[in-house]
Amino acid sequence: MLNPADDALAARLPKGVLRPITPAYLEEPRRRLTGQAGLVAAPRNVDEVAAIVRACAKARVGIVPRGGGTGLVWGQILPQGPAPLILSLERMTALRGLWPEENVLIAEAGMTLQAVRDAADAAGRLFPLSLASQGTAAIGGCLSTNAGGVTALRYGTARALCLGIEAVLPDGRVVHDLKRLRKDNTGYDLRDLLIGAEGTLGIITAVSLRLVVPPPNIGVAMLQVPGPEAALTLLSLAEGRMAGGVTAFELIAGQSLAFLAEVLPDIRQPLPGAPWSVLIEVGLPEGLPAAAALEGLLGDAMERGLVLGGVIAQSGQQAADFWHLREHIPEANRLIGAIASHDISLPLSEIAGFIRDAGAALAARGDMRVNCFGHLGDGNLHYNLFPARGRVRGDYDALRGDLSDLIHEMVVARGGSFSAEHGVGRLKTGELDRWGDPARLAAMRAIKTALDPLGIMNPGAVLSATAGQAAPADGPDRS
Amino acid sequence: MLNPADDALAARLPKGVLRPITPAYLEEPRRRLTGQAGLVAAPRNVDEVAAIVRACAKARVGIVPRGGGTGLVWGQILPQGPAPLILSLERMTALRGLWPEENVLIAEAGMTLQAVRDAADAAGRLFPLSLASQGTAAIGGCLSTNAGGVTALRYGTARALCLGIEAVLPDGRVVHDLKRLRKDNTGYDLRDLLIGAEGTLGIITAVSLRLVVPPPNIGVAMLQVPGPEAALTLLSLAEGRMAGGVTAFELIAGQSLAFLAEVLPDIRQPLPGAPWSVLIEVGLPEGLPAAAALEGLLGDAMERGLVLGGVIAQSGQQAADFWHLREHIPEANRLIGAIASHDISLPLSEIAGFIRDAGAALAARGDMRVNCFGHLGDGNLHYNLFPARGRVRGDYDALRGDLSDLIHEMVVARGGSFSAEHGVGRLKTGELDRWGDPARLAAMRAIKTALDPLGIMNPGAVLSATAGQAAPADGPDRS
Repeated sequence: MLNPADDALAARLPKGVLRPITPAYLEEPRRRLTGQAGLVAAPRNVDEVAAIVRACAKARVGIVPRGGGTGLVWGQILPQGPAPLILSLERMTALRGLWPEENVLIAEAGMTLQAVRDAADAAGRLFPLSLASQGTAAIGGCLSTNAGGVTALRYGTARALCLGIEAVLPDGRVVHDLKRLRKDNTGYDLRDLLIGAEGTLGIITAVSLRLVVPPPNIGVAMLQVPGPEAALTLLSLAEGRMAGGVTAFELIAGQSLAFLAEVLPDIRQPLPGAPWSVLIEVGLPEGLPAAAALEGLLGDAMERGLVLGGVIAQSGQQAADFWHLREHIPEANRLIGAIASHDISLPLSEIAGFIRDAGAALAARGDMRVNCFGHLGDGNLHYNLFPARGRVRGDYDALRGDLSDLIHEMVVARGGSFSAEHGVGRLKTGELDRWGDPARLAAMRAIKTALDPLGIMNPGAVLSATAGQAAPADGPDRS
Repeated sequence: MLNPADDALAARLPKGVLRPITPAYLEEPRRRLTGQAGLVAAPRNVDEVAAIVRACAKARVGIVPRGGGTGLVWGQILPQGPAPLILSLERMTALRGLWPEENVLIAEAGMTLQAVRDAADAAGRLFPLSLASQGTAAIGGCLSTNAGGVTALRYGTARALCLGIEAVLPDGRVVHDLKRLRKDNTGYDLRDLLIGAEGTLGIITAVSLRLVVPPPNIGVAMLQVPGPEAALTLLSLAEGRMAGGVTAFELIAGQSLAFLAEVLPDIRQPLPGAPWSVLIEVGLPEGLPAAAALEGLLGDAMERGLVLGGVIAQSGQQAADFWHLREHIPEANRLIGAIASHDISLPLSEIAGFIRDAGAALAARGDMRVNCFGHLGDGNLHYNLFPARGRVRGDYDALRGDLSDLIHEMVVARGGSFSAEHGVGRLKTGELDRWGDPARLAAMRAIKTALDPLGIMNPGAVLSATAGQAAPADGPDRS
């Protein structure tokens, strides 16, 4: 149902871009919050995006850009305030070009990450960004949120894999900067500013991406370690031996395995009951078989007491099984039902101390289970709290906010971040206000005002609402 | 000699920061232009930097930040207009911390790149950024200009090696963001915005840097190739075999070798007279000797006709000799005396065509010598023009501007950049105005105005002077 203001705006849009609104446009993955309904526009090309942005500027209607909708911090939904226009990139899915000899691919923003990876693969190349949600996540959203995933240790986050962008600025101007260049020092880094801005400074409509030649020898192992500190020493040892060849280094807590055994018992566990284990993947040069390299590492590490045992995958299927286990930890978490989740990063040398101290502090607050796992090589942990056995999520409603504050305080005190890879969205604007560097926040607000003086681009995301903007609701959970 | 305005400003500065002005503060490396004299202030800490910036804002005096002074595009000198305050980072040279287990180092901006590299080395780590001028270049300047160098192929430019910054904004506020984190998605990427802004948005006073464990097996070879196209196919082959292990891939023209033979005859040449050659460095894992890997590559490449012959360094000394040759090409160029130099980048698949077409177009303009060499793996060439034998630089004065325009036009037409790694400074603002994307330029100006409304930060650099700012002189040469 359109209101009169919607009618006026709809009349100004390019023909054929409006789509019927469905609940899917108003959802976020954890279904804890629903967005405001409004117009849904799905442009077919960058000129239509620009026309929509200009029309919204004229009508003073906020724009919520939407890719695959897989973001976890409510950047893709506007729960309160005036109805926005939802700008879906779902029709801009073209592969604009692929240059295998340059290791470059240009994709439109609505292409899924999986489709980008498949296109690279078909040309004998690898686009290394890899996330659990890659079948749905749009590449434009991955860039807008600077997505991380399991290969950031080796290849960096999405930002490091982007050579150039095409984007529509809040005034409707189009930045044409889809360069296929590794080096270009001609002025301010507008690309990296729009990457990670979560749609608040403009809409990324296409991206030029860096590909790599897949490593000839790939190996995967799961290793039981005495604890997080030993895991980090093992990482350092592995990096020293592998010369940049460590692709992934994931920490898995005993609690992760216990949850998997409880709710996904069909998943095979190579190290059942291990209190701490690590999944390592290496990608090595011609002439160096991965199994031999991993055996060398394992021997060295066991001698030093860094590894208690382990399994080196003997086939591609076994390697895939190890990854299957790792990738189903979030699903097991969902089935158990978290009290609160935290996407944190820490300086590597602070991790072991944080895990120890946070565990002790939480134990003093009440009976609960902690599942601490994730991208240890990046210092990025998912530190999630669950009800004690026999209790339910609702039992902790009164505690939830305090628990998250406690975790975030301990993280920030050790020089860490309260959002390592998920972004700020609308869920964590309060945290950013509280813990962000004041001078940096002031500069962010100055940039926002300079580029989007009307405040129409994804209003209320990243920067908390100021006068004239509606504050988003405090949702029922912290992700 | 101070003028009355200087006196008033000087009185507002922190005690003891003023330094006597010497010609060194007004020079750029090629000595084609001299900066305006003004006050020179050398603060000892970030608070003094902030106090100086606030005093200059109050007095409306422009600030020219200065690191090692090695920039090649006049970003460090203000040749015209009101006398600036030269803010030298020469006293801020402390190593604030080094965490080998995290692969992180925090340095003050005035520390030289060599000192940073040495500090990492002493801890068994490598800071990979490597430039000919690293003994003088300050790390703050390297970041402010997003320096490139010979290892960007593997490790990225300076931007990719920086985890966090401390910086003074144009209003005197201090951004404290010296994070030791690989992942931190909490808002706009102010770090990457200040990196490469050449001091026009603020002054970087300290940086948190990413180190790596040095690869266990390092190998260097010089290989003669049939031409640039074969060199690029060789690069692709090498990257496929080495799994990210190619550290450097430098193109050397026959003209480079001829100049070296002419003016630096003591430098040993392993492939004398080779019309095109490549210097490749690899850094490989434990268990894979570099010489064996290079021999495997060489055999494969010779079979495919990509390499005509070559020498694999048999010792560290021989490897150092090969690099010695490569690093003295700029010195040979200086001794010969260029008509014009160009720091360009191109999509890799455009390079061979550009070299062919540009050579033909220049031949039609007159008799001259072309020295085309550089970081081929990054698509970054130094394409420099020299007088024909028996003629001198001055003979080409009338042609110079047209020649550079021709080169830059051909580069831009192929999707390339007129400044790959040196930046814009004051030398290339005209090129940026001409070839920069208009929407991107408008956004850059909006950001500049938002963060530096008084226009005091390195006035006239990057963005050409607008009303109220003095235009820098068109110097006698393009670098």
